[in-house]
Amino acid sequence: EFLPLGPVLFIDTAGVDDDGDLGMLRVRKTRQVLDRTELGVLVTEAGAWGRFEEELLLELQRRRVPVVVVFNKVDVEVPDPERLAWLAGHKIRHVETAAAHGLGLDQFRQALLDLAPADFINSPAIVGDLVGPGELALLVVPIDKEAPKGRLILPQVQAIRDLLDHDAYCLVVKEHQLRRALDRLKSPPRLVVTDSQAFEQVAAETPRSVPLTSFSILMSRFKGDLAAQVEGALAIDSLRPGDRVLVAESCSHHPIGEDIGRVKIPRWLNTRVGGEVRFDHVQGHDFPADLSRYRLVIHCGACMFNRREMLTRILRCQQAGVPVTNYGLAIAFSLGILERALEPFPAVLAAVRNPPGGGSAQPRPLLPTRTYAPQDHAAVAGLAV
Amino acid sequence: EFLPLGPVLFIDTAGVDDDGDLGMLRVRKTRQVLDRTELGVLVTEAGAWGRFEEELLLELQRRRVPVVVVFNKVDVEVPDPERLAWLAGHKIRHVETAAAHGLGLDQFRQALLDLAPADFINSPAIVGDLVGPGELALLVVPIDKEAPKGRLILPQVQAIRDLLDHDAYCLVVKEHQLRRALDRLKSPPRLVVTDSQAFEQVAAETPRSVPLTSFSILMSRFKGDLAAQVEGALAIDSLRPGDRVLVAESCSHHPIGEDIGRVKIPRWLNTRVGGEVRFDHVQGHDFPADLSRYRLVIHCGACMFNRREMLTRILRCQQAGVPVTNYGLAIAFSLGILERALEPFPAVLAAVRNPPGGGSAQPRPLLPTRTYAPQDHAAVAGLAV
Repeated sequence: EFLPLGPVLFIDTAGVDDDGDLGMLRVRKTRQVLDRTELGVLVTEAGAWGRFEEELLLELQRRRVPVVVVFNKVDVEVPDPERLAWLAGHKIRHVETAAAHGLGLDQFRQALLDLAPADFINSPAIVGDLVGPGELALLVVPIDKEAPKGRLILPQVQAIRDLLDHDAYCLVVKEHQLRRALDRLKSPPRLVVTDSQAFEQVAAETPRSVPLTSFSILMSRFKGDLAAQVEGALAIDSLRPGDRVLVAESCSHHPIGEDIGRVKIPRWLNTRVGGEVRFDHVQGHDFPADLSRYRLVIHCGACMFNRREMLTRILRCQQAGVPVTNYGLAIAFSLGILERALEPFPAVLAAVRNPPGGGSAQPRPLLPTRTYAPQDHAAVAGLAV
Repeated sequence: EFLPLGPVLFIDTAGVDDDGDLGMLRVRKTRQVLDRTELGVLVTEAGAWGRFEEELLLELQRRRVPVVVVFNKVDVEVPDPERLAWLAGHKIRHVETAAAHGLGLDQFRQALLDLAPADFINSPAIVGDLVGPGELALLVVPIDKEAPKGRLILPQVQAIRDLLDHDAYCLVVKEHQLRRALDRLKSPPRLVVTDSQAFEQVAAETPRSVPLTSFSILMSRFKGDLAAQVEGALAIDSLRPGDRVLVAESCSHHPIGEDIGRVKIPRWLNTRVGGEVRFDHVQGHDFPADLSRYRLVIHCGACMFNRREMLTRILRCQQAGVPVTNYGLAIAFSLGILERALEPFPAVLAAVRNPPGGGSAQPRPLLPTRTYAPQDHAAVAGLAV
């Protein structure tokens, strides 16, 4: 499991530049590895560069396999300009790290994020994996003034489709019909999903034994990074009056009266913080270059973005040391219902119940919290020499 | 009930040009009628035109009420050019009819269709009125190659939303999960709606006591004219090899392998007819000026059109004497399942079971078959002097 790619098979190759009979065998093995490599990572050091490194990179390019060169131990020695010019001339990306000191890892993550094929980036499921074939989910869909005329919002449609794609089926109800719908069933649904704004009522009417979550949590897992964005929600409690918060929305709809990003979330947050927080708003593909002035970024569910774009934003927040969450997670936290909504995701829930302690000073783990079952992703062959 | 407007309150005014005390009272009554008039129809004859007609029209224009002037009995006397010039100068539309001989009625219908406010044209419901508050519909949504990636097609989304808007709720299932979903319910759904292509399987698995219909029938009622388009489906049996059929699609998607309009429907129709029918295809807002060469028009569900545009096409087919139906109705008829699918619409079903007999030579009734309950439409005040 390697952020942001999910489960990755790293193949530490035997060394393609060995001499002798044993070396020849190893070289052949390495060539075989290339046949199943989908993203190449060549880890080397400034001093350890030769004909074999260059041939391997050219071989990967011939195979149209994306590759990134990692110069590690740059605290000891930096790569010489001639090498870098050669890489630039061949349009091969490189990053410089000092892994032992935790330097350059975000740049390495960003390179993986940029280079990985779309299949690796895109999540395997929205909700169907939590329900399973032949099983039933109940979706609570309030119809408020922001609902598009005559239709449903995209995350709701995507959730229904994802359930069908997983051979599951679903009940779609307004919050006022929830009890009636539950009463009509011989056995309870496998999962209830609600709009975050109706969470309190839905939680009260859903039997305690039925797992309950929100569309925003599903969207965070699907389009973002659930563990990171839950951590961002927890940061709400360290906000103080006067702090700046960025509210970012991926679609550029015209805000209306009770707009969730401009009215409801600021109101809830000010109540929670006990004073006026200063909110900035951005829409669409605008995203500030300098995030350092913000104490928190609250993003929409990003249903109009692809996951690569959303993960890039999360990574940029992390690089700037700014917690990032999404609308529904912020609402759930403010309403005190985050824990119940995370029960379908035990690993993330455990992190909420036992926070690492040190807050933002704590080093971020290289391995993120698992939110999909391992079998959901095809194994990915990486490459390190 | 007046095509294409639905239930209309026609107010035959007492005459605004009477003299004397009784006349004054009548004039005041007529003015009051204008206060609740939403579409004016001034029926007159070539010889019966005066200052009052002109004042009434100008009064309606001041009130921004759309109006059409009907010169009736044009078989006796035609309106003089000066009158027509005055109307044209004031941008007032007129039609010429000889109602006793059935002349000009389609032009009158078209004028009503063009002038009526959108509220009159748009149907009050897709499916929610058939299910009712607190009740359950089951929607069967097969996922085939033509389903848009990760989403649902618009009629399915619109149906779900319409049910929620009517305080109903719904089960959404693939055809393979239908039996399992039905088994999970303590009481059967009030209605089952299926994609036409899965109708046979769904009909076999749905208890005979549960009403069953198709999305295409709902769309015909919502965006078109169900009675007229069912009549069009019945015309399939009068097709012969070599006849020309127009297949019209409102969206301009790129046709794929098993395209319903280009592959499946032609295949079914050729089988039914027992020989090669010649198919022409149009997409988007293209629609041939000359329809007379066609023996049948098969239209998509028109989810991308507004109802005014679809009703205009139906009227144009009727003016050309060409039957018109939609995809799902054609499929349902070809599969022999049309009658069961029409059971939720008893008046239309009766017309199928007892066809008027004379075929296309039969005069079309001015009052179309009712497909919405009367209380669904606000009463509409028309005006005739």
